[in-house]
Amino acid sequence: MPTGKPHVSVFIATSLDGFIARPDGGLDWLERANADVPPGEDCGYQAFMASVDVLVMGRLTYEKVLSFGEWPYAGKRVIVLSSRKQVRPAPYPEVVESSNESPRQLLARLHAEGCRHVYLDGGLTIQGFLREGLVDELTITSIPILLGSGRPLFGPLSTDIPFRLQASRSFAFGFVQNTYRRSTS
Amino acid sequence: MPTGKPHVSVFIATSLDGFIARPDGGLDWLERANADVPPGEDCGYQAFMASVDVLVMGRLTYEKVLSFGEWPYAGKRVIVLSSRKQVRPAPYPEVVESSNESPRQLLARLHAEGCRHVYLDGGLTIQGFLREGLVDELTITSIPILLGSGRPLFGPLSTDIPFRLQASRSFAFGFVQNTYRRSTS
Repeated sequence: MPTGKPHVSVFIATSLDGFIARPDGGLDWLERANADVPPGEDCGYQAFMASVDVLVMGRLTYEKVLSFGEWPYAGKRVIVLSSRKQVRPAPYPEVVESSNESPRQLLARLHAEGCRHVYLDGGLTIQGFLREGLVDELTITSIPILLGSGRPLFGPLSTDIPFRLQASRSFAFGFVQNTYRRSTS
Repeated sequence: MPTGKPHVSVFIATSLDGFIARPDGGLDWLERANADVPPGEDCGYQAFMASVDVLVMGRLTYEKVLSFGEWPYAGKRVIVLSSRKQVRPAPYPEVVESSNESPRQLLARLHAEGCRHVYLDGGLTIQGFLREGLVDELTITSIPILLGSGRPLFGPLSTDIPFRLQASRSFAFGFVQNTYRRSTS
């Protein structure tokens, strides 16, 4: 692992069977679960976001976010990983850049630019960074539903990756949120 | 769902990516994790077992348990689901029966026999009962490691299955144990 790189965090919700979306990308199950969350409770999302310098996401996730209509990352630098030269412009184009760098190249550049904390989003992007051993922290919020199929958070690895449990909390509405740090042992 | 059936519980450990064993059935990762568990801590296993009348497991899981050398279920009635007429005799043959009944048939018979609480074990068996809507309670202990591949706890479903969070606790050695009940809403 490079000695100089930003801290890389994942902050994501999954079904009990480990899916982040239905096979077609659908999030209806998550939206329905969120409807039970009391107003003002964001399960730590804003505090997490406040600590983040740069969002890095795959193109599929980016397109999904664009489809929400409202751009949720105003004022935050966003990098979309894509092999295409151009990605669709965001409502706030000044903060969205595309990149076709490798995970390692991108993190080295961001480190050189002074970035300290990257928020990594999107299943395939997270899987790619995990395979390279570049993810430092996982915050996973488990939603109490089995979907049976969908887009998995995790994918194949060439080796085990041990983590340390950093924090665990449950919510009255049934979510459980665990934060894991990459184990150094 | 039949009105008369035993309460059906799952009590199982998985990796963070939802595997209960490596592709070849290996549990080395779980045994290594268990080595960090302080003596006397069993994460609720004995209390759970004390509430169980009958263990129901698939043949693969049964063969795996036999391979441990020590029979861990002494004094407990065990039913092995198998399409074969005979399964390998256990060290305590008097408590091991085989059955090729469907999940529904088996539960109806056990109910008629006065069984109140079934402990269901083995990935494929659990998946089969879940698909039939016959699992009432899931206690899942998450081990802080990504394996990348293996035998998954969960499988395809024809419909979502919502659960309610019943209990959640974390342990200093990094396990998180959540109990979910089948949601009636």
